[in-house]
Amino acid sequence: MSLLIHNVRLDGNPTDIRIDRNRFTRIAPGQDEPADTVIDGAGFAILPTFHNGHTHAAMTLLRGYADDMDLETWLNRHIWPLESKLREEDVYNGARLACAEMIRSGTTFFNDMYWHPHGTARAADAMGLRADISAVFIDFHDPDKADEERRNNDALLRAADRYPDRIRITLGPHAVYTVSEASLRWAAEVSESRACDIHIHLAETEEECRNAQESFGCSPVAHLDRNGVLGPRTVAAHVNWVDEKEMDLLAERGVRVAHNPASNMKLASGSFPYADLAGRGIKVCLGTDGASSNNNLDMGETMKLAALHAKLRYRDPTVLGAEEVFELATGGAANLFARESGRIREGMLADAMLVNLGHPRLNPGYNLISDMVYAADSSCIDTVICDGRILMRGGVIEGEEEIVAKARESRDYLLGRP
Amino acid sequence: MSLLIHNVRLDGNPTDIRIDRNRFTRIAPGQDEPADTVIDGAGFAILPTFHNGHTHAAMTLLRGYADDMDLETWLNRHIWPLESKLREEDVYNGARLACAEMIRSGTTFFNDMYWHPHGTARAADAMGLRADISAVFIDFHDPDKADEERRNNDALLRAADRYPDRIRITLGPHAVYTVSEASLRWAAEVSESRACDIHIHLAETEEECRNAQESFGCSPVAHLDRNGVLGPRTVAAHVNWVDEKEMDLLAERGVRVAHNPASNMKLASGSFPYADLAGRGIKVCLGTDGASSNNNLDMGETMKLAALHAKLRYRDPTVLGAEEVFELATGGAANLFARESGRIREGMLADAMLVNLGHPRLNPGYNLISDMVYAADSSCIDTVICDGRILMRGGVIEGEEEIVAKARESRDYLLGRP
Ligand SMILES: [Zn+2]
Ligand SMILES: [Zn+2]
Repeated sequence: MSLLIHNVRLDGNPTDIRIDRNRFTRIAPGQDEPADTVIDGAGFAILPTFHNGHTHAAMTLLRGYADDMDLETWLNRHIWPLESKLREEDVYNGARLACAEMIRSGTTFFNDMYWHPHGTARAADAMGLRADISAVFIDFHDPDKADEERRNNDALLRAADRYPDRIRITLGPHAVYTVSEASLRWAAEVSESRACDIHIHLAETEEECRNAQESFGCSPVAHLDRNGVLGPRTVAAHVNWVDEKEMDLLAERGVRVAHNPASNMKLASGSFPYADLAGRGIKVCLGTDGASSNNNLDMGETMKLAALHAKLRYRDPTVLGAEEVFELATGGAANLFARESGRIREGMLADAMLVNLGHPRLNPGYNLISDMVYAADSSCIDTVICDGRILMRGGVIEGEEEIVAKARESRDYLLGRP
Repeated sequence: MSLLIHNVRLDGNPTDIRIDRNRFTRIAPGQDEPADTVIDGAGFAILPTFHNGHTHAAMTLLRGYADDMDLETWLNRHIWPLESKLREEDVYNGARLACAEMIRSGTTFFNDMYWHPHGTARAADAMGLRADISAVFIDFHDPDKADEERRNNDALLRAADRYPDRIRITLGPHAVYTVSEASLRWAAEVSESRACDIHIHLAETEEECRNAQESFGCSPVAHLDRNGVLGPRTVAAHVNWVDEKEMDLLAERGVRVAHNPASNMKLASGSFPYADLAGRGIKVCLGTDGASSNNNLDMGETMKLAALHAKLRYRDPTVLGAEEVFELATGGAANLFARESGRIREGMLADAMLVNLGHPRLNPGYNLISDMVYAADSSCIDTVICDGRILMRGGVIEGEEEIVAKARESRDYLLGRP
């Protein structure tokens, strides 16, 4: 399998880009060796794709089901009752819808935590994306539930070889308020012995921190550290409510952090201290969180929200500029997740998007990265390639109608409609 | 001229919608009277279009030219030097690019303030949009400059009948720090005698308020009131830095307010007190501001930003919900600008968009308004109609390539390229 993109703009200059199997093999103008597929890149720029650092893909099934509520009402009365009905097929249907949406908006990797993780892994596989997949692990401090969750997670880890290299299995202890100390320690040990990542929510809301003080006599960060979960294998989502000492500790431990600006704002959960974390050398990536608290999975929008939020929070328009936030969402995130994607460079994994340089939002065109961060939306994206395979071409994803129809079937099942 | 849209979803139910000339004339299923143009609306929902409450359309020409800088550097070293070179043709080219972008994202009305206003008015006219157009009025407290600006504004007002009803001319005194008291009073008098609106920036940054205290011994709001500018004919953009008394005064005077969340965040200028203003009965609409401080003109994104920002500011996820913010951007804004658009209803002016219900982001589809506010982007919009005329169909705007090419010509001229 080979793919040749002729005459596409890379960093402002026209070039030809060859992909053999799943890697960029030659980037230079004037290539005329035959290829299985040839794309005319005239009028397009090639860019690295987005990497979504925190999501629950199948929550697309709950998109718009309940909004604008306080967290308690939203979770207890709306989200959790519906989620309790989910079957693996629904998760598969919801995650495929999520993948279609992610492809449309230029995302080829996502870091997921959810119920029925095989549904998500199968969907990512079928749709051609890269993903880190974890089973959400919640024991509510109940030892029997803990046993069951450990067995689930163990089984998932053992089943990792069902999937291609694109898909990795991780551990997903949900958060300090939903997972017992014993289970946190278990996750830390398994992460160490199996060399797999931990994906956890951390210090998302002020209430979480208040409750941790009451229950454990310390902050969520300190609680994770006591139980061995703070280390370079851990990706912590949110991290809004942390003081100077806690940020120092996160930096010292090499914890990676996923910032979810839309979700933090929509749920009014908190304000992410980007400059304080990045200033300590902590690796930060961006995530959309689940579609029920966002309500989309658009990393382009997420870049803009992250940049705008940081400027307002620090009252400084120079904080988190376009180049820096673009890097957080592309090459920086790929590096953070130890993936060889995220750069258009010979030898790297062949993930890329082509954007339409004739689109009004990318014009008159002084600075493509600024335009992608602040001006573009998904309508500027024409073609998406992941692992050398074309997933969208001319704005068309094959089989999308059936994907949407299946998601609607799952919606009707969840609502108890005939 | 008549237009019939068959079998389109309105508030969830399929119906037929007839437009004669520029108004909705019949909304009922089963219509079979012939029409000049017939659209098959199956798979689409019809929605009111967006009304952009504050922008400088031709600033698309500066999109991405300078970002992530402090306000002083940005304006003095980058924006103003380039703007000083603008000719009416450039403003026309930039405003046409803006109109193309606005049409793509479902906007059919914009409230503008800029140099060479005939360029913007001609562009809005040619592109088929509605607009309130003002010449930016800046005298820098210089009486000679003030005379010149008054003549300019007078001439523009007298030329109003060059344009169709869709386009209205207003007065655009820029802000308290750029316009003398004499000119503010002049604007107040002309607004009264000619029954035309005033469009002004107000209390955008903390510095503006500090400087007003130093220069005038009072706040920008009080300064406008002293000079007769605070009244129901005035639309004030930004209004971030106001205390309780000033908000009471704005409410008492019937001033209307345009909130620009992206610009406020990108320039780190301030945080809009939505609930405090709306709670006093002040009419609020949404704006994008110019493309150089946003950097797009997307009212869909603006709705989401407004809702998210309000929730975070008030630390309450129930503030400014989807239905409320959608109304701010559509029917509410039309009403605020005294336009008979913004509702899909018999007798109203025929502005509407068709959105693709098969788009992944509008699925699985529980609540279309929530999906439009929180999940959609412009790629969900298929067709846009303004004043009974189809401006975009199937995502295609006629003549767009030439519009983009002309904007690039103006860019090259501004940069001094051959
Ligand atoms: Zn989450
Ligand atoms: Zn403005």
